[in-house]
Amino acid sequence: MKSIKVGMLGLGTVGTGVVRIVEGHQEDLQRKIGAPVEISKIVVRDKTKRRNIALDDAKLTEDPYEVIRDPEIDVIIEVMGGIDATKGYLLEALEHGKQVVTANKDLMALHGAEIMSFASEKGCDVLYEASVAGGIPILRTIVEGFSSDRITKMMGIVNGTTNFILTKMSQEGASYSEVLKEAQQLGYAEQDPTSDVEGLDAAYKMTILGTLGFQTGVSMEDVSVSGISGVTKEDIDYGKRLGYEVKLLGIAERQDDFISLSVQPTMVKKSHPLASVHGVFNAVYVYGEAVGETMFYGPGAGEMPTATSVVADLVAVSKNLQLGISGKAGFSPYRTKKLKTDDQISYKNFLLLHVADKAGVLARITEIFAQHEVSLESVLQHPNEDNPSAEIIIITHDANKASMNQVMDSLRRLDVVHEIRSVYRVEG
Amino acid sequence: MKSIKVGMLGLGTVGTGVVRIVEGHQEDLQRKIGAPVEISKIVVRDKTKRRNIALDDAKLTEDPYEVIRDPEIDVIIEVMGGIDATKGYLLEALEHGKQVVTANKDLMALHGAEIMSFASEKGCDVLYEASVAGGIPILRTIVEGFSSDRITKMMGIVNGTTNFILTKMSQEGASYSEVLKEAQQLGYAEQDPTSDVEGLDAAYKMTILGTLGFQTGVSMEDVSVSGISGVTKEDIDYGKRLGYEVKLLGIAERQDDFISLSVQPTMVKKSHPLASVHGVFNAVYVYGEAVGETMFYGPGAGEMPTATSVVADLVAVSKNLQLGISGKAGFSPYRTKKLKTDDQISYKNFLLLHVADKAGVLARITEIFAQHEVSLESVLQHPNEDNPSAEIIIITHDANKASMNQVMDSLRRLDVVHEIRSVYRVEG
Repeated sequence: MKSIKVGMLGLGTVGTGVVRIVEGHQEDLQRKIGAPVEISKIVVRDKTKRRNIALDDAKLTEDPYEVIRDPEIDVIIEVMGGIDATKGYLLEALEHGKQVVTANKDLMALHGAEIMSFASEKGCDVLYEASVAGGIPILRTIVEGFSSDRITKMMGIVNGTTNFILTKMSQEGASYSEVLKEAQQLGYAEQDPTSDVEGLDAAYKMTILGTLGFQTGVSMEDVSVSGISGVTKEDIDYGKRLGYEVKLLGIAERQDDFISLSVQPTMVKKSHPLASVHGVFNAVYVYGEAVGETMFYGPGAGEMPTATSVVADLVAVSKNLQLGISGKAGFSPYRTKKLKTDDQISYKNFLLLHVADKAGVLARITEIFAQHEVSLESVLQHPNEDNPSAEIIIITHDANKASMNQVMDSLRRLDVVHEIRSVYRVEG
Repeated sequence: MKSIKVGMLGLGTVGTGVVRIVEGHQEDLQRKIGAPVEISKIVVRDKTKRRNIALDDAKLTEDPYEVIRDPEIDVIIEVMGGIDATKGYLLEALEHGKQVVTANKDLMALHGAEIMSFASEKGCDVLYEASVAGGIPILRTIVEGFSSDRITKMMGIVNGTTNFILTKMSQEGASYSEVLKEAQQLGYAEQDPTSDVEGLDAAYKMTILGTLGFQTGVSMEDVSVSGISGVTKEDIDYGKRLGYEVKLLGIAERQDDFISLSVQPTMVKKSHPLASVHGVFNAVYVYGEAVGETMFYGPGAGEMPTATSVVADLVAVSKNLQLGISGKAGFSPYRTKKLKTDDQISYKNFLLLHVADKAGVLARITEIFAQHEVSLESVLQHPNEDNPSAEIIIITHDANKASMNQVMDSLRRLDVVHEIRSVYRVEG
């Protein structure tokens, strides 16, 4: 029986996991695919580097073209990361008729449409399960499991680093900067943590989820993004007292044919399943018109979990190869993108204001909300012992973003409002 | 473009949902499948019955053979339930080369192996996603999402009726019989609730999960089953005080190549995600060697959620038809079944004993555990105000089932033990 030959681009953490699984589960893989699978070449940056996995040196090369142009190779697994050069390699691999599996969320979020369309032209599969929520098979679930349903909302804790930081801040009352430092020491956060803490990593993932879940080409510019670097102990405390946990949520919504996508720190009601997702775990909550509420929970990163998703994709593309249907069973977006405008996007808001501690202040503030037709769910005022301001917490009912922007402008101009301390979206 | 023609067996709750989705999502289905899908015939028990869905009367028939022998029909959707007659219909449908989608867990648990093997002989697909955990696409997840991993444990809340009952008992302090009555009034429990409350329904589902997750033909006789009719308010109260929720869990485990399957009321630690699955919701926790912990949560039953899974299967078999790969991409078990014996099955136990309230009793009891090499995690004794017995709660460390059986025998023979009030498996 002819074996499926795999070339790998990259042999870092995830790559090593892939090699371990393919070698360790050979019998199972062969049963599932119907042919043996063999990793025949691996591109590395430095062949002489010591690695914590035993490998035949002859398989290693520093030249990517030796892999992507090798006529013997059937499948390319890309776990090297990077964007422009990597895109070039994958397009050339497709040009040579190779099936592609990648774990590269940045690449797929930025250039997925181009790559997928070229793959379809060439009759090749491109799968990228590992790019979102590591070990959770969420992309297949959305594309296949809910193929019959109309997904109207996806909310995800899709970045482990920020969830680790927010969990620690909530459980230990530590400050953002303390926990960030700890996360860096543990290797959960990069030395430059911008992409994680400012929500970009989560936004890449929401771009991919949005494209697959809403069958429309979503791009990074469609996602409104804010990160967690402004989240304070104080906010988390207030949230908890009112029954909320602060989580960085990616939210993708559809109403009729209009969609909106965002990433922001969000007050999540404690009774909502996402509020109990702690540490580096990920979870994606999916709401479908017919199915209702579902949630998928698991490890969002790590060598073996991510490698599991990569090798599951390898099994899928290899089966398609065996069946002669490569490039035919894939998904391509077919809806015209229609983005919601600010007056169509609505949600609850949590505001913490520092205001002058005198009579009539609350009336003046609530009047502003009334003027813009934003109704309030609850208002909590109590004196602040440390300074002459009082603190007011306001939770609105669903309010559209355009009206809320006007409310914020008016509040800023109001002399009795000393500071708009924080504003959060509320879910759950 | 030739349309995919579907014949339905049954038009009850789920069947009605299937018709609604197929008619309401026509454009999406056509995009996903590559051909229109049309429900051309439906077998009902009584054509004249009033239904809450508008249907062309000409599509209805009372004769199943008119559907399964119709050469025009490509796919049979079976949502009529029943075992022997239904099996006959499906086998004949396969004989006529039809693809099959079924929601029938009893049938698949009891005769799945025979049906699958006949389907494979005939080059046909049989999919049954809706048979386990209604709207959660758990079967695809196990077969495809974790195709690269070795699943070592699956724990499921896979019966909504019992989870509704246990949730109500826990939250409202109500008794089993009160809540059962309420569940029957709400339509969550059958008038004869045996299959649900005695754990048989859950056992059917664990049979299916075990077969797919462990790649081996599991049958009902392999599942050790006990239900919830003996669960008392007192047990739930004690559990809560010690940090546990009582849940009816289906548990399937594998160590090396040895497997065990069971269904039983279980004390689940409150910090475990399964402890927060309330009401009629279902969840399946899956532990894979590489991926680690994952959990899949959603509605376990209901017209639309279950119909979602049925139609997702319809999409899958229809795509396979279009690609000309029917009967080729399926899964068949390839491992020899090796069941664990009682001395290989081990878990923690929770025991509530009523014992004589006098000196030395605890020593005599704990000695019995020591004799059989069962070590204890915690022991809690306190006087019982209502009667001359004291109550002792013992939580063991992992102990094998054979030793625990001996412990139980010895305890029963001990004069100072008035009653072994309850015994639970402990997880989480």
